[in-house]
Amino acid sequence: PGKKILIVYAHQEPKSFNGSLLKIAVEELTKQGCSVTVSDLYAMQFEPRATRNDIVEAFNYGVETWEAYKRGGLSKDLVEEQKKVQEADLLIFQFPLFWFNMPAILKGWMDRVLVQGFAYDLSKAYDGGLLQGKLSLFSFTTGGSQEMYSKEAISGDIRYILWPMQHGIMHFCGVKVLEPHICYAPESVSEEKRKEMLTAWTQRLRTLWKEKPIDCSPEWYFK
Amino acid sequence: PGKKILIVYAHQEPKSFNGSLLKIAVEELTKQGCSVTVSDLYAMQFEPRATRNDIVEAFNYGVETWEAYKRGGLSKDLVEEQKKVQEADLLIFQFPLFWFNMPAILKGWMDRVLVQGFAYDLSKAYDGGLLQGKLSLFSFTTGGSQEMYSKEAISGDIRYILWPMQHGIMHFCGVKVLEPHICYAPESVSEEKRKEMLTAWTQRLRTLWKEKPIDCSPEWYFK
Repeated sequence: PGKKILIVYAHQEPKSFNGSLLKIAVEELTKQGCSVTVSDLYAMQFEPRATRNDIVEAFNYGVETWEAYKRGGLSKDLVEEQKKVQEADLLIFQFPLFWFNMPAILKGWMDRVLVQGFAYDLSKAYDGGLLQGKLSLFSFTTGGSQEMYSKEAISGDIRYILWPMQHGIMHFCGVKVLEPHICYAPESVSEEKRKEMLTAWTQRLRTLWKEKPIDCSPEWYFK
Repeated sequence: PGKKILIVYAHQEPKSFNGSLLKIAVEELTKQGCSVTVSDLYAMQFEPRATRNDIVEAFNYGVETWEAYKRGGLSKDLVEEQKKVQEADLLIFQFPLFWFNMPAILKGWMDRVLVQGFAYDLSKAYDGGLLQGKLSLFSFTTGGSQEMYSKEAISGDIRYILWPMQHGIMHFCGVKVLEPHICYAPESVSEEKRKEMLTAWTQRLRTLWKEKPIDCSPEWYFK
């Protein structure tokens, strides 16, 4: 309802299941009257490496990007992404889980876009982070089944994997976190089941605005 | 003692603290008569994005790289890294912690080098992973102090952060994991303390071969 949403999308193939989830989110949220922006990282050929090209001078990446941010000296692709983040009420991250984590191209977005001074600052972190007032939602697909990501199974509770992303990044920047949206093993299930998953995503998006953020404490993750 | 070591290094600046840790590892391990190979990811301009350029055809990255691996159709930079991994007895990952995780360029190394068929396969994962017989060691620096990474502190136990890297990647591939080597906040401590940290790294490398791998179970991480 007039809300602005940024979807950061990290899959190479529009015809993939992640591509379908993206399409649904764009359509459904637009239908709700939201304004949706998509950062399609592979299509943008987004640079994931945090290199000295991001700034014009000598080199300690964290310190230098912080200084460059204050002077308005960051590279154009970063300034553009920061503007999208600044304007958004909700950030959706859509990706396939690679190695218990986000793909490198999306990790590069985190490393390069969320610089000190913009997303957090000295003593402005966690509940005091600079991106307060925004929501985030991690929407991803897995290779393994839901059973493989339970506390008793070898891969452990899926929430263990969410700690660095949700707590270490979003909560650190002051962004509230909605329940993750996880599609388990879409490549291994029936076509019917895949359709159900897509429908479930649409349904969730319809009532998204009534959701309460999770309690971002160690108990949520490790209890 | 005749052992082969691959150090995968992800820092932009040779004069950094990570650069010093790397130098020490190369010197000390060489002195021990080990054969040391370094993959300096930024210097190599290593591509972190898992794109269709890695293979010659149509696109499901996981499936396609697996097939391409079997046919010998992976891109040259991947084949070269896989050869280094295959030959190594010990893999050392040296990097600054970015956002509770490895930098994107190193995540890209994991995403692209450890393909199915090479590092794991259907039902060949964890203790049955294809890289059995090797050791790994995550050596990294943090921005925050050690106190910030304790169970009671806001950032939580540092071991929570190690789960996706050590368990989700290395253990998944069958690689045993040595205790991580963590230098807390080298940018915030005295020059003297920094020197002590470097000495401690040298000391550790001297007796590294007597170390037992950690017990790679949820208890080690979350107990």
